[in-house]
Amino acid sequence: MTKGSRQPRAAFLGLGLMGESMAVNLAKSGMEVVGWNRTAGKRGAIALTAAGGRCEKSLADAVKDADLIFTCLGDIPDVEEVIIGAEGVQKWAGKKSVVIDFSTIGPQSAKRISEFLQAKEIAFLDAPVTGGDVGARNATLTIMVGGEESAFLKAKPALEKMGNNIQHCGPAGAGQALKLCNQVLCAVNMVSVCESFSLARSLGVEPSLIVDVLASGAGGSWALSTLGPRILKSDFKPGFALKHMLKDLRLVFENLESSEDDLPGTKLARDLFKQIADSDGGAGGAKGTQAMSLAYARKPE
Amino acid sequence: MTKGSRQPRAAFLGLGLMGESMAVNLAKSGMEVVGWNRTAGKRGAIALTAAGGRCEKSLADAVKDADLIFTCLGDIPDVEEVIIGAEGVQKWAGKKSVVIDFSTIGPQSAKRISEFLQAKEIAFLDAPVTGGDVGARNATLTIMVGGEESAFLKAKPALEKMGNNIQHCGPAGAGQALKLCNQVLCAVNMVSVCESFSLARSLGVEPSLIVDVLASGAGGSWALSTLGPRILKSDFKPGFALKHMLKDLRLVFENLESSEDDLPGTKLARDLFKQIADSDGGAGGAKGTQAMSLAYARKPE
Repeated sequence: MTKGSRQPRAAFLGLGLMGESMAVNLAKSGMEVVGWNRTAGKRGAIALTAAGGRCEKSLADAVKDADLIFTCLGDIPDVEEVIIGAEGVQKWAGKKSVVIDFSTIGPQSAKRISEFLQAKEIAFLDAPVTGGDVGARNATLTIMVGGEESAFLKAKPALEKMGNNIQHCGPAGAGQALKLCNQVLCAVNMVSVCESFSLARSLGVEPSLIVDVLASGAGGSWALSTLGPRILKSDFKPGFALKHMLKDLRLVFENLESSEDDLPGTKLARDLFKQIADSDGGAGGAKGTQAMSLAYARKPE
Repeated sequence: MTKGSRQPRAAFLGLGLMGESMAVNLAKSGMEVVGWNRTAGKRGAIALTAAGGRCEKSLADAVKDADLIFTCLGDIPDVEEVIIGAEGVQKWAGKKSVVIDFSTIGPQSAKRISEFLQAKEIAFLDAPVTGGDVGARNATLTIMVGGEESAFLKAKPALEKMGNNIQHCGPAGAGQALKLCNQVLCAVNMVSVCESFSLARSLGVEPSLIVDVLASGAGGSWALSTLGPRILKSDFKPGFALKHMLKDLRLVFENLESSEDDLPGTKLARDLFKQIADSDGGAGGAKGTQAMSLAYARKPE
């Protein structure tokens, strides 16, 4: 991974809510980290500098001497522009460097980027994460990695500074595929929680008993234990925003070769999330995924 | 609970798979337990006798001196016949006795039984359980109790010999209501597991990674951790048989005052379970609930 005898150097592109914490953890571990953000002057740049890193104004300067190039961006167009766009990473990155993307973009886009970079002798790893902003801050993320084993081994020591569950899932796109499976689990488990609460109200039993009595048994889930209590308090602040879940479920169906009807539970969850996202004049998407419960709220009698 | 100075005496009606283990645990605790089964000569009677209890051939003899009368039967018609039928418990039970039913029959039936017995000064508790045959054997059941507080306190010491999580949930029917909420959680969480596995196969990532990597995170559930590995091994032996889940989901919709469409995820789960139960010439219902995954099996290409 080293060029000559120097320590490996990292570029970190995208210092948003997640990227900031991850870049900071990497810099704190002693690695040289050069940050870059599409919009200058963001708090991420300040935090990274305070943690011992530095920021560059141009993507080219951030990337050109890096061995590992991390990206933590939004949706497919952003990621593809920054990595394989005409003025993107592909133009400035050195041969033998490894590009590691933490964004959730689905396997098809990950494979497209991987093939593009491969032709330029740049390795690519799709490496979406779960664990949220808390996991990013505490370096307890799960990082699901797709790509060549050799590239994975080069990136792994750095990934271990940002997460505590680093998994090589298979070839290019495999990390993305597993991440989408995770989103399906989270989305449909939320249906489960909301319907049990709805049934409790309908049958006149206290919904809090579901959390207190059932969460430790065969009906238990992370969604019930963690988000159930928030629903009971009508706390819809986002742990994970509903609009981001909708984006990920869009990727599920875009990447699915067959009909949407092959995943009817996921389709149902998507439709319920959409109903809430469209509420409040379209502002509902900023709520947490647990706001799905509002779709089950009792009609006025 | 005592009559004069003697120890409380229990009748146990229904010595099937669950009832046998529960009656045995009660007898082993030192309580006098008199069993009765609708079909004579069953292994439950032998096991209860070996544990220090005894069996009577007539329901009347089993019930007439009992302070606590436990029933562990099947569906509504069985439970109503045994408890409030013309020759049932209601005819032979002493005033001040408490009838405790472990069957899953839904809140409406539980309230009907409770009112009938109340008119005869016999207390009733609906007390459905979760934890399966393993929980029954190891006395680790969760027991969800509906009914009067005074009756609950009389029964509680005996219930603590059969379960380790004894919860008073509210008035008559509240135990049943919470049990149905649990079945909704279990049913819809199974949809979640099956769809994540289906998506993994569709996207070409190894489904076992879902269990290995995702079960400890935000997508985690008991269903994923416990039944996921069985699906991966095509092990469809029943922990909880699909036909019993279908019965419980039937109760959910019978007890719901509004439309089935108010619980679309539960309805979907019910339809998927039904599809499997109807397969194998109608023998599919004997499989465990994890056999829902067969409904998501890839069509031949």
